[in-house]
Amino acid sequence: MRVLVINCGSSSIKYKFYEMAREKLISKGAIERIGEKGSPVTNHRQGLKLILKAVGRVEAIGHRVVHGAEDFREPTLINEKVIRKIRECSRLAPIHNPANLEGILACKALLKGIKQAAVFDTAFHQSLPPRAFIYGLPYRFYRQDKIRKYGFHGTSHEYVAYEAAKLLRKNISQVNLITCHLGNGCSIAAVKNGHPIDTSMGFTPLEGLLMGTRSGDIDPAIITYLVRKKKLSPEAVDEILNKESGLKGISGISNDMRKITLAAKKGNGRAKLAIEIFIYRLKKYIWAYLGVLGEADAVVFTAGIGEHRPEIVRGACLGLFNNLRVKPKVMVIPTDEELMIARQTYKLVKKI
Amino acid sequence: MRVLVINCGSSSIKYKFYEMAREKLISKGAIERIGEKGSPVTNHRQGLKLILKAVGRVEAIGHRVVHGAEDFREPTLINEKVIRKIRECSRLAPIHNPANLEGILACKALLKGIKQAAVFDTAFHQSLPPRAFIYGLPYRFYRQDKIRKYGFHGTSHEYVAYEAAKLLRKNISQVNLITCHLGNGCSIAAVKNGHPIDTSMGFTPLEGLLMGTRSGDIDPAIITYLVRKKKLSPEAVDEILNKESGLKGISGISNDMRKITLAAKKGNGRAKLAIEIFIYRLKKYIWAYLGVLGEADAVVFTAGIGEHRPEIVRGACLGLFNNLRVKPKVMVIPTDEELMIARQTYKLVKKI
Repeated sequence: MRVLVINCGSSSIKYKFYEMAREKLISKGAIERIGEKGSPVTNHRQGLKLILKAVGRVEAIGHRVVHGAEDFREPTLINEKVIRKIRECSRLAPIHNPANLEGILACKALLKGIKQAAVFDTAFHQSLPPRAFIYGLPYRFYRQDKIRKYGFHGTSHEYVAYEAAKLLRKNISQVNLITCHLGNGCSIAAVKNGHPIDTSMGFTPLEGLLMGTRSGDIDPAIITYLVRKKKLSPEAVDEILNKESGLKGISGISNDMRKITLAAKKGNGRAKLAIEIFIYRLKKYIWAYLGVLGEADAVVFTAGIGEHRPEIVRGACLGLFNNLRVKPKVMVIPTDEELMIARQTYKLVKKI
Repeated sequence: MRVLVINCGSSSIKYKFYEMAREKLISKGAIERIGEKGSPVTNHRQGLKLILKAVGRVEAIGHRVVHGAEDFREPTLINEKVIRKIRECSRLAPIHNPANLEGILACKALLKGIKQAAVFDTAFHQSLPPRAFIYGLPYRFYRQDKIRKYGFHGTSHEYVAYEAAKLLRKNISQVNLITCHLGNGCSIAAVKNGHPIDTSMGFTPLEGLLMGTRSGDIDPAIITYLVRKKKLSPEAVDEILNKESGLKGISGISNDMRKITLAAKKGNGRAKLAIEIFIYRLKKYIWAYLGVLGEADAVVFTAGIGEHRPEIVRGACLGLFNNLRVKPKVMVIPTDEELMIARQTYKLVKKI
């Protein structure tokens, strides 16, 4: 079965096209600057038309959808009701979900009768128990406003968890893992018997580990301090915490770990500090999750930093498990979110 | 030497009076509702006059001061320069430091020539390394605005760390401890060779563990979400996070662990959830700090919940260290911040 995987951003479409019987990647590509001034592609529908023309016959489509809230615990075939619910979730992901939805609606109009699946970044983490997903806030914020920990990067965590289970020669339902997705965004999950019981990203992808440009955990009172004392607007604070913080904010150099590593090697103190903080916080989360899991079969690293910066992996793990009776294996596994989306789409469509 | 320990709040003065040769508590008391309508005591100076009359001859005074920023790494004898610096720190503790300072100035006026010491809640944590105290924010927020992790409850953490070292028959400089101060405010510290290398409270006492009415850690993006989407003022959000959250917010019952425990025993689901979350987060911090320390001699519990709710201590520790080669001892040690302030004042004044 030929499965097209679509990832629609607000001004881009990325795709990968697979023959799923052999899990073979046939083609891939991206259209960028959609709707921007001077761009020949003025909207998502036009972009998707070009992609569909390029790839040839499509038998099923899998869409990445960022936010599935509590409505979607797993990948789901798309129908009118699902579309309505994805639209409702836009309140929680106002930039991403509307773009994802545009892709879905365009494919629906262009390829009548072809089955489409939605694969959610949040779905894998819906196994979290309330002790992990409820914040220490007035309970009405959860009940009425749906403010809770959702977690993101679910497709990546799930993919590497399955691959790790394969390498461990165990069934996914029998492995305890700590999976670390360290890209420009970073998150970590405690996976018990194949299902996450905790993860570091929260209501939004801002919480948790230090990231390329995102702060991760901070004292929440800093936000109101910045608004009250420095007279920053909430929008300006959001912008700072998401775009000007993290590795970039501390180092003052870049959000790119490669550049920061080079600067650190040349003796730049703030570059060294940024790397040290990155590793330190990662280590603390790994240990918190070791405590939560009791025992872990492996700590798995993936995404840009996880796959290509062994000194970070070593820094977070080397010699640090000496005090454990059952030491976790340390694994580096390249992630492949698109293949995971294709697999899940294939599985859903095959069933029909 | 007779040492008077003074803890000035905005409308209260608490005191304890010691004979330090034998560390004997001679008397103690409190004046409340200072300056409030109908109260016979209209200001701190008048209140302190009453206290000084009650206790008799005083040879030294120790003041609790909440915030010493980076200026005070240890207890300090008070002079004009110290007074100026404590005033400067008021920006970071706008409610507490001015009240503490009123007490200092009143004692100075009333007891000319008597030595006074300032003992800071933040001082013990000044040993934190930058990897623990720098947030993932633009570095200028640290340099220019002094936004960093300070940590609080330092006097209590230091007191129980010393008492734990005594019980372990080791010198304080040779012990690794995790100290858990669990009162209405809660904080935890990783103490390496007698000095904290990390602690859970941050720029303010809001960060970290779940507390009686404080949220502890949350996704920082929730704050701007509440301001933008729910049109709450930053002041209203501060109020909610500090006064309406934590155990009280989740349970909807009380900030008092005893009342919540009773409700949970009667089957109240949200009371159970509040306790479960309290323990879960405590466990995660203990394990994060085990990772940071490598090995710990003991996990020490103190303050209201730590001293009187053994089921919480058990929940955070029981059976959970099975996977460790070197298992920490679990200790409950009643805290005594006033005695610690008296000891430090005595030590400073003796030296002169």
